[in-house]
Amino acid sequence: MNSIGIVETKYFTFAEPPEEMTLKNGVKLGPITIAYETYGKLNDDRSNAILIFHSLTADAHVAGFHEGAKKPGWWDDMVGPGKAFDTNKYFVICSNVLGACKGSTGPASINPKTSKPYGLSFPMVTIDDMVSAQKRLLDHLGIKRLLSCCGGSMGGLQALKWAVMYPEYQASVILIATNYRHTAQQIALHEVCRQAIMSDPDWQNGDYYGKSIPARGMALSRMIGHITYMSEKSMDEKFGRKLIGKEKVGYDFSHDFEVENYLKYRGDSFVQRFDANTYLYLTKTLDYFDLTEDGNLVNALKPVTANFLIVSFSSDWLYPSYQSKELARALKANDVDVSDIEINSSYGHDAFLVEVEGLSRLIKSYLQRMTKEYSYVK
Amino acid sequence: MNSIGIVETKYFTFAEPPEEMTLKNGVKLGPITIAYETYGKLNDDRSNAILIFHSLTADAHVAGFHEGAKKPGWWDDMVGPGKAFDTNKYFVICSNVLGACKGSTGPASINPKTSKPYGLSFPMVTIDDMVSAQKRLLDHLGIKRLLSCCGGSMGGLQALKWAVMYPEYQASVILIATNYRHTAQQIALHEVCRQAIMSDPDWQNGDYYGKSIPARGMALSRMIGHITYMSEKSMDEKFGRKLIGKEKVGYDFSHDFEVENYLKYRGDSFVQRFDANTYLYLTKTLDYFDLTEDGNLVNALKPVTANFLIVSFSSDWLYPSYQSKELARALKANDVDVSDIEINSSYGHDAFLVEVEGLSRLIKSYLQRMTKEYSYVK
Repeated sequence: MNSIGIVETKYFTFAEPPEEMTLKNGVKLGPITIAYETYGKLNDDRSNAILIFHSLTADAHVAGFHEGAKKPGWWDDMVGPGKAFDTNKYFVICSNVLGACKGSTGPASINPKTSKPYGLSFPMVTIDDMVSAQKRLLDHLGIKRLLSCCGGSMGGLQALKWAVMYPEYQASVILIATNYRHTAQQIALHEVCRQAIMSDPDWQNGDYYGKSIPARGMALSRMIGHITYMSEKSMDEKFGRKLIGKEKVGYDFSHDFEVENYLKYRGDSFVQRFDANTYLYLTKTLDYFDLTEDGNLVNALKPVTANFLIVSFSSDWLYPSYQSKELARALKANDVDVSDIEINSSYGHDAFLVEVEGLSRLIKSYLQRMTKEYSYVK
Repeated sequence: MNSIGIVETKYFTFAEPPEEMTLKNGVKLGPITIAYETYGKLNDDRSNAILIFHSLTADAHVAGFHEGAKKPGWWDDMVGPGKAFDTNKYFVICSNVLGACKGSTGPASINPKTSKPYGLSFPMVTIDDMVSAQKRLLDHLGIKRLLSCCGGSMGGLQALKWAVMYPEYQASVILIATNYRHTAQQIALHEVCRQAIMSDPDWQNGDYYGKSIPARGMALSRMIGHITYMSEKSMDEKFGRKLIGKEKVGYDFSHDFEVENYLKYRGDSFVQRFDANTYLYLTKTLDYFDLTEDGNLVNALKPVTANFLIVSFSSDWLYPSYQSKELARALKANDVDVSDIEINSSYGHDAFLVEVEGLSRLIKSYLQRMTKEYSYVK
């Protein structure tokens, strides 16, 4: 498939007053830098902008290649010339969330007041805060309205909150494999991942920068994550009981099964590419997310005016499709135009990144429809 | 409900030749002690014996109370006067598996050759080895044939293997929430639990006896376990997003949600009651289990002659009911008489211990039917 080619991450720092942003918990934070990338061109009437929100450990680099890189951005299958998010037609923007570690201000960033990394002195950010920071970026880019905003998993929470906080700001919202509040099982899984990191003596209460990183805890946490991203079926199809270059099991504590090696590989590579404190913060951000707050979803969605496409996957047990269906029902109760689609897939939560063909077909035609219905706000 | 009252654990040591047992991996192990309990009375024609196999972290103490104890055995709801396994009618036996830490010989036992705990020098035991050791105990007790043998989860693997290794030895087999081989997801979850323990610096390559135990790793491992024992629905019903004595979330890394406290409690209490190395060994034992070996389940079940009752639970995602159904189909292909029942329950894998009413009804009538059909072998 066509790639958009070489791309570069750009940075936007809130330089003008108010330089500080007041977070949902009341804490003031600033200066804030937001890393972002854009693909395609903003058309003359500025009516073709699409904002993509990334998931837990992804970043602003959605598509194309960074100079010298072998791997493209995390959703290169979906974003590029002729693809679902067709960069010949649309101007696509993605920013690294506030609180992350891929160029935006987060726990691993240097606190200008102390000249040291924030670590645990970084304030807790919420989905609301991420969305507010992204809105500042869009204002800076001169975008007055979006054709669409789209996110999967944690990105979906942002897209949903965006639609509530800035209801007139987009014509449509695409939610993939997401929900409207984190449930007990999701919180429980995050808590185990956090405890894995915080139990690692190298974590040092978050003060590990420039020293040994809590690699064992990080790897463990990622192993748990990868199990939840797949489905029982996809694990069985991919690995089954296949042994690693052995005729027989070893009857000892070395690895016997391919699935064990896969988890180790995934765990170890995560250690290299992500910051432990950031992982702690972002999982808390997810756990805190409850769009309803008072438990009433229909009420919480009252401000929404955009058209919705909600996609879920049959084997996703981390963000089960019943949650998407509840959300669709509550939107419909508010007379919102919703297309609610469950894709039959064995890939579990990973389907959001893997089911490219089905997703592309859906999103391509949805965006074409939305383009026709789009009205530009001057 | 009636309890059987005060009970005592007994011990059987293979004292006569062959004092050593040759394990499946070829290693000789001995002397071996097996801890066991019995409830009810063996009748005159020795036709009312039932063997119960315990699950991963349970023990021989199924029912009644140990002297001074506040809590009864792990299946007291099911075993006792007038209960499903009615101790007024049946003679019930349960032994702690070989390789465990509740009185039977295992990694935490003293190796008589070194006068130190075995630790990682303990040989790997398989389900076959556990079953062989239990057979020795039954020979010692003078049991020539069982009315039934029953196990849930890991206990089910033993019951199934028992039916293949000693086909004429029991009239019936009751399997609950179990399978016939461990799948990639089950192996993956065990591997994460093992890595949690082995990543704890206090684990010391298994040589922690008399020193600090790997408490953090053990607790983590148990937290993961408890998530897998419940279902998404039962977690949501029990905890939802309930906060712990707080009006609002704390926006920090202290616990906010009840589910977080529950996992911590479960983790910490596990540390007190189980041995870390034993947990490593037993999860490996589970992972190694594949009744088919060559992949052909129908062939693997050819020796079976007993009648089967197979129970699974709709929301059990750790031992999904499709695995029980595959097993039932393969038994039927061998002309085995099988009752295959999926109980509709939201309790996940825990249903095996929680769905007392449904299970009691099923097992009570099944055992009555089996008693009528029973023929004693002299």
